[in-house]
Amino acid sequence: MEKKFFFRNKGPFKLKVLFPYTKINFDIQNVKTLKEAIKHDLTFYDSVRYENLAKKTKASVCITTEKLKKHLPKNCKIILVKNVLFELAKVLKKFYPDSDLDYPDLSLQKPSKSKFPAVKFGNNVLIGKNVKIGKNSFVGSNSIIEHDVVVGKNCVIGSQVLIKNSYIGDSVVIQDGCKIGLKGFGFIPIKGNNFKFPHVGHVNIKNNVEIAGSCTIDRGSLDETCIGENTYIDNQVHIAHNVKIGDNCMIAGQVGFAGSSTIGNNVSIGGQAGISGHLKIGNNVKIGGGSGVVKDIPDNQIVMGYPAVSIKEFLKNK
Amino acid sequence: MEKKFFFRNKGPFKLKVLFPYTKINFDIQNVKTLKEAIKHDLTFYDSVRYENLAKKTKASVCITTEKLKKHLPKNCKIILVKNVLFELAKVLKKFYPDSDLDYPDLSLQKPSKSKFPAVKFGNNVLIGKNVKIGKNSFVGSNSIIEHDVVVGKNCVIGSQVLIKNSYIGDSVVIQDGCKIGLKGFGFIPIKGNNFKFPHVGHVNIKNNVEIAGSCTIDRGSLDETCIGENTYIDNQVHIAHNVKIGDNCMIAGQVGFAGSSTIGNNVSIGGQAGISGHLKIGNNVKIGGGSGVVKDIPDNQIVMGYPAVSIKEFLKNK
Amino acid sequence: MEKKFFFRNKGPFKLKVLFPYTKINFDIQNVKTLKEAIKHDLTFYDSVRYENLAKKTKASVCITTEKLKKHLPKNCKIILVKNVLFELAKVLKKFYPDSDLDYPDLSLQKPSKSKFPAVKFGNNVLIGKNVKIGKNSFVGSNSIIEHDVVVGKNCVIGSQVLIKNSYIGDSVVIQDGCKIGLKGFGFIPIKGNNFKFPHVGHVNIKNNVEIAGSCTIDRGSLDETCIGENTYIDNQVHIAHNVKIGDNCMIAGQVGFAGSSTIGNNVSIGGQAGISGHLKIGNNVKIGGGSGVVKDIPDNQIVMGYPAVSIKEFLKNK
Repeated sequence: MEKKFFFRNKGPFKLKVLFPYTKINFDIQNVKTLKEAIKHDLTFYDSVRYENLAKKTKASVCITTEKLKKHLPKNCKIILVKNVLFELAKVLKKFYPDSDLDYPDLSLQKPSKSKFPAVKFGNNVLIGKNVKIGKNSFVGSNSIIEHDVVVGKNCVIGSQVLIKNSYIGDSVVIQDGCKIGLKGFGFIPIKGNNFKFPHVGHVNIKNNVEIAGSCTIDRGSLDETCIGENTYIDNQVHIAHNVKIGDNCMIAGQVGFAGSSTIGNNVSIGGQAGISGHLKIGNNVKIGGGSGVVKDIPDNQIVMGYPAVSIKEFLKNK
Repeated sequence: MEKKFFFRNKGPFKLKVLFPYTKINFDIQNVKTLKEAIKHDLTFYDSVRYENLAKKTKASVCITTEKLKKHLPKNCKIILVKNVLFELAKVLKKFYPDSDLDYPDLSLQKPSKSKFPAVKFGNNVLIGKNVKIGKNSFVGSNSIIEHDVVVGKNCVIGSQVLIKNSYIGDSVVIQDGCKIGLKGFGFIPIKGNNFKFPHVGHVNIKNNVEIAGSCTIDRGSLDETCIGENTYIDNQVHIAHNVKIGDNCMIAGQVGFAGSSTIGNNVSIGGQAGISGHLKIGNNVKIGGGSGVVKDIPDNQIVMGYPAVSIKEFLKNK
Repeated sequence: MEKKFFFRNKGPFKLKVLFPYTKINFDIQNVKTLKEAIKHDLTFYDSVRYENLAKKTKASVCITTEKLKKHLPKNCKIILVKNVLFELAKVLKKFYPDSDLDYPDLSLQKPSKSKFPAVKFGNNVLIGKNVKIGKNSFVGSNSIIEHDVVVGKNCVIGSQVLIKNSYIGDSVVIQDGCKIGLKGFGFIPIKGNNFKFPHVGHVNIKNNVEIAGSCTIDRGSLDETCIGENTYIDNQVHIAHNVKIGDNCMIAGQVGFAGSSTIGNNVSIGGQAGISGHLKIGNNVKIGGGSGVVKDIPDNQIVMGYPAVSIKEFLKNK
């Protein structure tokens, strides 16, 4: 399934319109990550952590800093700035002006039997334009599915749920009260009036996932937030923008993920643990309940504590 | 008040249908815990922690392991297995096929004045079949009470609340946004397609309990999840399946309970503390905010820390 | 904008009606904090922490203890008691009998176009009596705004939100699922039947604030709960009664605030941190994710850990 943006692209824009001080005459079609950008796209590169992606980007233009520009391919035009994320935010605001605020979907209607003949709905369900729901799926009462969301077959969506900007696979369970696809917690701090970072990404929930009650999953900023196949998530878990969780993971209640971390396959995380942002957690990792993970964890490790260390070290220090 | 199962029992089943390799010819009426099982019931015994209950069980048949079978009464027929919980889950799925997924209640309707003459309802309230609500109770707008739930008199149920599979006593307050009676976080991990554990139990909230906003309380798996009289629970608390909380407890915001723990009377728990699964916390225990409790606590102790230790030990180590 | 109480004052009461054992003949108009009380008001003084406010109070009468009475002005009549908060609770219950329970607002109706010509509403929105909403504001589907709430202009209120007893400024964003203005977690513990503390205060959210999904913010007890200008709050944050948060703060996901703490300006708090009650956190403080703050923090400090200490000390002990 092709995954498109949920927000309308107001581009193309001339590079001179985006950056008045540049002399390059070039049309920008879209804004994407280093990895996903193609010809005529603008991208951004703000941390040496992404050097390998920078070297291989196919973007025509990249916003970056004096220090990082050397890693970019020679045929990539460079826009030098001091604050990469602020410049990116301003460009995104031009391309996708409505993506920095969660305006409620005003196209919602009661689902029509003719459009969804094989879906069972509770009472007062509200469905936006162009929503697709597969056969034998259930949607509970007072739930809202906003425009363009895709839900697979054999899914059970509970009551009082909200889903927007999301692709949901087959046989997915989303229990009561979950809020999925919200704008993430991203902004450029400015005293008195922060600049809200546009969030044009989406949430991608794969087959056989189960998400328990009252979880929140924010959509990606440029990228996606992704939950891998057969991963089960307990009540009141918070998953921030751009987080990628692998397959067959088990995540207990009240766990929190800060933005942009990547979690491997077969990872189990105990209740109330917290995972900081921009980390890489390997496959088959076990994280004890209540732990605070602040650095990358290689495959097959068992960690615990605050900050989390290997279980051996944790027990030694007790 | 007699408390029945919220799910329909498809039994009886012949033991040979449940376990094709057995030679015992016997009809099983129901599946219950060691403590609650009676003649013609099947039960299970999977941990030496429950030895005392095993010795006294009145079940006719018990699923257990080679190692544990010796504790069971002589007249109890034994089904030997390797993975007790997996075999139990498969049997429960036969008896209660719809209890492993929270299918939304499709019998909901607006409450009729004639049926609930002494109850005050907000707007858009939805009530399932056979729901009972006592006199002088309030139910706020957009709340949902699913089939067969019993709510006592003088209760105040807030708005945007969901209650299912639950018995609620008198003078109980449940504030806005709570989700009560959901399926718990239980499954047999199988790569690619976990086996969902049926949850046929209920939630039992006793008189004078107060539950603040946006809490989640999961129903018991076979057993009940219970909140004792006059216990007060603050916002965003997560209570997993089979947890039993005593009377007169005070539980501050964002506390989390993993499954099957038992908490005594007059226990106070500070904000964001976590209680691991299958623990026994005594009476009059005080647990400091942010603590992580990972072992049983005797009566009258004050504990703190991660993992939680006595307050004396905690301060000594600082 | 003048901020009035959301609850109806049943006063005045004669002092002898409130405290039958007193011999003072005096009419009490209202009950207020030491700071806000004026002539003919009753106030209370229960901790030496508020000595400076006690010395300057303009209240005509004050409930206090033998030990504390010396700090009160000479012209302030004194009611000596053993348990200040219990006596206060009983008095408040007389003045504001409905404020100790969140009775759902039964005056809710669909918003009329004539009353809100410049506001965009989703489906099934419910609005109470005397609600004011400024122009160009949005309210998402299934949201509830109870009586007398004031919402400014250019606000975006998400879906499935509940707001009561609150003043919301301009350009405020409140994302989906938030519950704002609930009764706080306050009561006098009495075995079998706690005495519920009346909560007559409100929530005051200033301009440009952003509150992400599924947060809970309780109203003040006598006072207000306040979120300062341009403060941004992530998903699933819990803010208890009487908390005051300054301007330009950044509060990450799942942070919890116990009651009555004051947070300065430009404070940033990492995910899952907890702030105990009755603390004073200075300006420009940074609190690491997962920390447990249990004492006051002066301006400009960086703290981390459980209990939170300066970052230097935290790293030294690792």
